[in-house]
Amino acid sequence: MVKGFRAAAVCAGIKKNKKKDLALIVSDTPAAAAGVFTKNRVQAAPVRLDKQRLSSGVCRAIIVNSGNANCCTGDQGMADARAMTRLAADALNADEAHVLSASTGVIGQHLDMDKIRAAVPGLVSGLSENGFAAAAEAIMTTDTRPKLVFEQGQMGEKTYSLAAMAKGSGMIRPDMATMLCFVCTDLEIPAADLQQVLVDANEASFNRITIDGDTSTNDTVLLLANGQSGVRAKTPADFRAFAALLENVLGKLARMVVEDGEGATKCVEICVINAASRQDARQMADIVANSSLVKTAFFGEDANWGRILAALGRAGVAFDPDAVDIWFDDVKMVKQGLGCGAQAEAAATAVLQKKTFAVTIDVQSGLQQASVLTCDFSLDYVKINADYRS
Amino acid sequence: MVKGFRAAAVCAGIKKNKKKDLALIVSDTPAAAAGVFTKNRVQAAPVRLDKQRLSSGVCRAIIVNSGNANCCTGDQGMADARAMTRLAADALNADEAHVLSASTGVIGQHLDMDKIRAAVPGLVSGLSENGFAAAAEAIMTTDTRPKLVFEQGQMGEKTYSLAAMAKGSGMIRPDMATMLCFVCTDLEIPAADLQQVLVDANEASFNRITIDGDTSTNDTVLLLANGQSGVRAKTPADFRAFAALLENVLGKLARMVVEDGEGATKCVEICVINAASRQDARQMADIVANSSLVKTAFFGEDANWGRILAALGRAGVAFDPDAVDIWFDDVKMVKQGLGCGAQAEAAATAVLQKKTFAVTIDVQSGLQQASVLTCDFSLDYVKINADYRS
Repeated sequence: MVKGFRAAAVCAGIKKNKKKDLALIVSDTPAAAAGVFTKNRVQAAPVRLDKQRLSSGVCRAIIVNSGNANCCTGDQGMADARAMTRLAADALNADEAHVLSASTGVIGQHLDMDKIRAAVPGLVSGLSENGFAAAAEAIMTTDTRPKLVFEQGQMGEKTYSLAAMAKGSGMIRPDMATMLCFVCTDLEIPAADLQQVLVDANEASFNRITIDGDTSTNDTVLLLANGQSGVRAKTPADFRAFAALLENVLGKLARMVVEDGEGATKCVEICVINAASRQDARQMADIVANSSLVKTAFFGEDANWGRILAALGRAGVAFDPDAVDIWFDDVKMVKQGLGCGAQAEAAATAVLQKKTFAVTIDVQSGLQQASVLTCDFSLDYVKINADYRS
Repeated sequence: MVKGFRAAAVCAGIKKNKKKDLALIVSDTPAAAAGVFTKNRVQAAPVRLDKQRLSSGVCRAIIVNSGNANCCTGDQGMADARAMTRLAADALNADEAHVLSASTGVIGQHLDMDKIRAAVPGLVSGLSENGFAAAAEAIMTTDTRPKLVFEQGQMGEKTYSLAAMAKGSGMIRPDMATMLCFVCTDLEIPAADLQQVLVDANEASFNRITIDGDTSTNDTVLLLANGQSGVRAKTPADFRAFAALLENVLGKLARMVVEDGEGATKCVEICVINAASRQDARQMADIVANSSLVKTAFFGEDANWGRILAALGRAGVAFDPDAVDIWFDDVKMVKQGLGCGAQAEAAATAVLQKKTFAVTIDVQSGLQQASVLTCDFSLDYVKINADYRS
């Protein structure tokens, strides 16, 4: 429970599988609002709408549908996104400009507004302090489970609360906000500070994960703070405390998104250490984390370190292949570019049989490091994505 | 038959499946030689050796093994690559410096030199003018069929011949030479001109294909010209005629490599037209050709144009999504960023059911274009690569 926030979800009939597909998150009072969005040049209508409206820094409600991305839908799509927010605003007696929206699902089809119009009254009447679980379910597409985190924070003697939900689980790669994530807190904090805290926490969480190297047109992370706990963040120390809490929560959700990546059976942290620069480290970690050959080897539980070196070699970063060490968790598999033999291989294979492990790559070029969270590339990934629209 | 060239292949026991895995291609007289190699920073021992030796512009023989890439094998790997060429040189009574080598297969394991040493006498005694088919078979790894092309060229009244073989079929992406390709011609042409012709033909063929976005450490294309036909290329017109023939032959092999891509069921040409620059067009074609989501949709025979637009949006190229048209062969599926409706979709789906088709993307930003050949992303790709080393 987060003071002054309520949520609800219904089945409006947008998804073909008759599951919940329309969610509403409401703050009883106007909340300070912040957002980060996809960097894809193709942006869905709700993304463009939210970016305009967030300039006010105020939000009363977020209305979200799954099953249709409302992207590549032209002027009609913008009108539909606006109409969705107007339906919510009217039912809540709120200013339409203070309602945000998000959509996720198939690209290139118009929303069925009749279905949404018919569903909004039931959605509003169902609003409840306990509605977050239902909302987290309604924003799912190929996710196999809802992703919801509750946390409490301390500021001096006082306690405030935070609820955060996210959905994955394809079209996800680093350097972009993730698919959809909505965070509500009853802390009081100015909108400008909220935005900075969100950008930083996003950078340290959702921007460090990848599922398939593709980037959605709809990625949206929204953070609302309505101050209803009576706790106010004022000092730099307060902001830092909230930032740490938020980073922790978004980090948990980001890991949940990777663990539930399309078809994923493994969650793997790729750490590049001792690189010449942070950017080099990041570039090298990214190329390994997105290599189809590395990811299929993870699926096959095969300690195929040659593919890791081959991927590093096309990262566009200078390094000496003959100086590289590679560990699977604490098993040293490669020393100065050469395999460490059958015993190391057997131990590394045991590591790969775990659901979660780390690959550490020491490139011996400097002192910087970076890590990226990825999943394996499985038969189910292909099955899910070959059949997605049917 | 190409005058003055012979080839042979044997099973040396490097591959576990007891298929042919050692090939030899010999020119009876010293041939002019040219080569292009992987741009991966991690380069296999034979790649490094060939680059050194090609500076002489002369080659008598190429010895090739499959089943082991001799990459990430350190000083021992270089010694083994050299030893392979020495074995061939001794048996052929040739200068070791005029023998090149190539390897393909698993990375990070040492070659079993005893097996190669034992196999070389049989290899040399089997040399024959008709040995190219056996050699094309011996260089295969996950390829399902050998790739061999014979052509005859005219220069004035005279005829010369050319034989070219290639192998794929994973770890292939544009802007790199492909895995392995060996071309023999009995035309006479200076080594320096040969190199330029090869670079250009490679750019127009193997550098325009992608299977999985990964790049091999062993990619090698070698071209030998021994002049034994008595036909000599002298004038710029002669060079252009040979360049056209070579581009045509490498283009055929490149298409064969994509058609036989790991698990591939479709061969798709991605053409980006009316881009602001050739580089923009190429970048956009590449990102679409390498998108896992686009490639799984091809496998699912799903005209999911939204994924194509979403991929374009992350190509790092400025364009107006609302101006884009997309065709599947001659079916216009997207007009100015919007879907063309159910009838177009049905027609496009029929195109996707073919084994070979083109996707043309008009980005309406200028006058330049580029195209890339790709395949779909199938269940078998994952199966092949999860099990590769076992």
